[in-house]
Amino acid sequence: MGQNQYGKAENRVVRIVRDGATHHIKDLNVSVALSGDMDEVHYSGSNANVLPTDTTKNTVFAFAKEHGIASAERFGIHLARHFVTSQEPIHRARVRVEEYAWERIGTAGEGGHSFVRRGQETRLAQITYDGQEWEVVSGLKDLTVLNSTDSEFRGYAKDAYTTLEETRDRVLATSVFGRWRFNWTDDAQEMPDWETSYEETRQHLLQAFAETYSRSLQQTMYRMGARIIDHRGEIDEVRFSLPNSHHFLVDLKPFGLENDTADGAVYFAADRPYGLIEATVLRDGCEARIPADLTHP
Amino acid sequence: MGQNQYGKAENRVVRIVRDGATHHIKDLNVSVALSGDMDEVHYSGSNANVLPTDTTKNTVFAFAKEHGIASAERFGIHLARHFVTSQEPIHRARVRVEEYAWERIGTAGEGGHSFVRRGQETRLAQITYDGQEWEVVSGLKDLTVLNSTDSEFRGYAKDAYTTLEETRDRVLATSVFGRWRFNWTDDAQEMPDWETSYEETRQHLLQAFAETYSRSLQQTMYRMGARIIDHRGEIDEVRFSLPNSHHFLVDLKPFGLENDTADGAVYFAADRPYGLIEATVLRDGCEARIPADLTHP
Amino acid sequence: MGQNQYGKAENRVVRIVRDGATHHIKDLNVSVALSGDMDEVHYSGSNANVLPTDTTKNTVFAFAKEHGIASAERFGIHLARHFVTSQEPIHRARVRVEEYAWERIGTAGEGGHSFVRRGQETRLAQITYDGQEWEVVSGLKDLTVLNSTDSEFRGYAKDAYTTLEETRDRVLATSVFGRWRFNWTDDAQEMPDWETSYEETRQHLLQAFAETYSRSLQQTMYRMGARIIDHRGEIDEVRFSLPNSHHFLVDLKPFGLENDTADGAVYFAADRPYGLIEATVLRDGCEARIPADLTHP
Amino acid sequence: MGQNQYGKAENRVVRIVRDGATHHIKDLNVSVALSGDMDEVHYSGSNANVLPTDTTKNTVFAFAKEHGIASAERFGIHLARHFVTSQEPIHRARVRVEEYAWERIGTAGEGGHSFVRRGQETRLAQITYDGQEWEVVSGLKDLTVLNSTDSEFRGYAKDAYTTLEETRDRVLATSVFGRWRFNWTDDAQEMPDWETSYEETRQHLLQAFAETYSRSLQQTMYRMGARIIDHRGEIDEVRFSLPNSHHFLVDLKPFGLENDTADGAVYFAADRPYGLIEATVLRDGCEARIPADLTHP
Repeated sequence: MGQNQYGKAENRVVRIVRDGATHHIKDLNVSVALSGDMDEVHYSGSNANVLPTDTTKNTVFAFAKEHGIASAERFGIHLARHFVTSQEPIHRARVRVEEYAWERIGTAGEGGHSFVRRGQETRLAQITYDGQEWEVVSGLKDLTVLNSTDSEFRGYAKDAYTTLEETRDRVLATSVFGRWRFNWTDDAQEMPDWETSYEETRQHLLQAFAETYSRSLQQTMYRMGARIIDHRGEIDEVRFSLPNSHHFLVDLKPFGLENDTADGAVYFAADRPYGLIEATVLRDGCEARIPADLTHP
Repeated sequence: MGQNQYGKAENRVVRIVRDGATHHIKDLNVSVALSGDMDEVHYSGSNANVLPTDTTKNTVFAFAKEHGIASAERFGIHLARHFVTSQEPIHRARVRVEEYAWERIGTAGEGGHSFVRRGQETRLAQITYDGQEWEVVSGLKDLTVLNSTDSEFRGYAKDAYTTLEETRDRVLATSVFGRWRFNWTDDAQEMPDWETSYEETRQHLLQAFAETYSRSLQQTMYRMGARIIDHRGEIDEVRFSLPNSHHFLVDLKPFGLENDTADGAVYFAADRPYGLIEATVLRDGCEARIPADLTHP
Repeated sequence: MGQNQYGKAENRVVRIVRDGATHHIKDLNVSVALSGDMDEVHYSGSNANVLPTDTTKNTVFAFAKEHGIASAERFGIHLARHFVTSQEPIHRARVRVEEYAWERIGTAGEGGHSFVRRGQETRLAQITYDGQEWEVVSGLKDLTVLNSTDSEFRGYAKDAYTTLEETRDRVLATSVFGRWRFNWTDDAQEMPDWETSYEETRQHLLQAFAETYSRSLQQTMYRMGARIIDHRGEIDEVRFSLPNSHHFLVDLKPFGLENDTADGAVYFAADRPYGLIEATVLRDGCEARIPADLTHP
Repeated sequence: MGQNQYGKAENRVVRIVRDGATHHIKDLNVSVALSGDMDEVHYSGSNANVLPTDTTKNTVFAFAKEHGIASAERFGIHLARHFVTSQEPIHRARVRVEEYAWERIGTAGEGGHSFVRRGQETRLAQITYDGQEWEVVSGLKDLTVLNSTDSEFRGYAKDAYTTLEETRDRVLATSVFGRWRFNWTDDAQEMPDWETSYEETRQHLLQAFAETYSRSLQQTMYRMGARIIDHRGEIDEVRFSLPNSHHFLVDLKPFGLENDTADGAVYFAADRPYGLIEATVLRDGCEARIPADLTHP
């Protein structure tokens, strides 16, 4: 028997708070994974140590009412602490959260209770607790960005299978999957302001993408991570997984057309295959803890 | 042999125009379907009348360069006219377009060439031309909206299979799939300003959703359509297909909790099944032409 | 007000019948759409004529118990008749069904209650009833097939945008989305054996695909439809929507390799764009009723 | 700078071998990730050590021709060895493969070149090489299985949030995501027969699922892993991630119906939330190497 864990995944919990006519919404997808003294259930099917996944689901919804949802991170911390401290056989809890952002529909009259889903990135949070130490990793996925110039790719290694031509001006596009680990590990420490931290980190990431003159997606990615480490003292580690979403300049010569940038260049946005560029950026002296080899695509 | 059509689907064409340091991006997914004298290819495999789908693909990319992409609708009109007028056996062309919106990444310095995908709805356009008459249907999909109050559902029909309890205060949420048909049908007429029309129509749809005190999703949907018909003279027909994205108030009584709205109500956002509410709203005296029975996207 | 309909979509109903140690499983996804005297709910929000979608859901599950699920078609007929005949304001019911096939896990001992999902095509059925006439359209989607030879494409029309080279030997692959309409329209007629009809129709479709020497996908598609019409007297109309799933022979000359079929040819399986070929094949003297312009699933 | 890797993902390579009129097909999705002396590209954008991802793509297609595809594993081994041994700055290569199975369309006459995609599970293989040691992990995903009886769940831990009732007869269904690590780590060792190993391992997995009287999904999962370890000497470690695909017995009492198994029980197949059960099963004395904490859902 090696590592094992279980729990209820993808609990879609929505909490709406009314402040007079102005409502506030939190929209989460919460997954719980519990580990501990669970050998017996695997060997003999004895469920004596198994808190049902149905109970973990109930707990998610009940805690949303009892404790509110100040942030995905704080909500996950409440849940993780509860499972580890209330059930003796449970030694570790991991809570994963996806969060979907909503913005208000601006109207002259009403509108305090009307929302449109923002639809851009999905915010991520993962809280792990083993009874002693906390690990909080936040992040985002599906934030699609594009630079239409200031990107080149040349001077690379060549072998017998290399046919790619160098370029000094290409489109650079990706869909950001990023995660960052906080150095908050202990109840005794003051917690970061999770909401502010997220907004600022997201903004640094976007700024670095926009402002870097790119010689490779690796370089841009590193700048994105380094800028977060430089500006956000609460974060020690950043991991990115970035598809290189190729935009190929279409060859229009057969039709007597020069596909230059003069009056609009035309690109084919390709699906597969795509480059996939991944790296961890660390604060000096810190150790990597975000797993590098993600699940099978 | 009944109706038949063929062409290249999902051409992912991106056009970027440089206005000094400020770039502009159009990001489309274009599908072409051609009909005409095509019996022989079906019966004997003779391809004499078949312009290859590869050629329709090339045409999409070449036209993006030659004619630019002022709007999805205008681009589709160029393409449809070309196929019908340049190839004698082709009697009808239908061009479908999905458009993805981008917004600028705001930065102090650079930024004129840096974009983040908006990620909200996908804009739709369908242009059909038979050599004489035009039909332009625009629309959107995946615009997710939610009202956290001012929605009730009661006074409905009941039979032996009815167990639902009436409610005077529920969450009303849906993901809008809407299409609207223009009354522009002839080259001789002045074209609508397609970009303005889209923005305004989308805004009316959102306003009607936000401002309607809802006794049923049907009523809200009708108001969305009627408001568009009332305010946008260029549109004669609106068709909506709206899932009722159920948000169920969770029963927390077993845990000693009253799930009232007092300090935040907690909902379970369900996946399947869901209500599906569809209707056409017409300008007085106009005929419906948008097909009712679709395979839901 | 134009056409409108409503109901509960995607009811995932599974029925398991025990015949001693041997169990039988039916696994359906059922969507109900009801129409009738529904103007008032749209105009004023009065729900007096609205049977809740929650009730249509309950009815689906209760009917699975009361009447069993002999076939998707028969189940849909029971449901459609019920809604139209039991609720005066309802004048039309459309029931759509997706069915997922399971096969037994073969074991020496047990196994009569152990299944693995077949995973190939999804079976489709759509039953429409207006109180007088029935329309039954069955079909399938996502049946992926491939011929590795006996397919050519040449002799096609050429224009200024044509660059495609002719070929006498290519891979022909598609993912079949097919629907076929039965001529059973009346309770007084004897019903087809829906299960046998499906199995035989599917088989004819596959045989025609395999046995046709193809000069175009259109020709192969027509043969698939014509073979069904020829062999299945209960079917009057067949509609196909077939993506041409391009497998491009990779140019390996830059690496000193001839990519011939001699010792294995290597293809790139492309995603987008793809050809999309659609047609209706009719029994002589019959009228087309399956809508041509669908949103592709 | 922490761990980093890059390469071309999702190369869709299809190879078709002709043995007279009988053709054979291999259909793969290949992703390459390379690591090594890559600090400089991240820091300064110097690409001197970067073999372009386009080259890794070319290599995949060229190797399919040059070396054939005897199995996903052997193909991955060729590729990984090539990258590590031919490029000095590359110290580690990871090749991931998805494989899609095809079966023949049985026909009286032709048929040796006609296939239908099997559509059941996707086969997986991951090959990692650091110049000295090999790690081969194979597996599968999306193999959906169901036992309609011989499953109970009772005797579990209860707390204040537990409302679940015990059951002695429930449906047990899951979609298997399984991976298994081979003890082949060295070129000097004889390789397993990868094709036979896969078929046998898959069969043991299915048999264990079918034959286990289940007191919990954990127990069934353990038996699946243990049976593989017991019967397949080439495998040292198995990791499963199994959603508990809940089939809830529908309460039909409000409609005067007893939903017993007597003449067919009716279930609601739920989407979210779902239990998620994961574990590693190890050969005695072996160490776990398959990562436990997969990517965010």
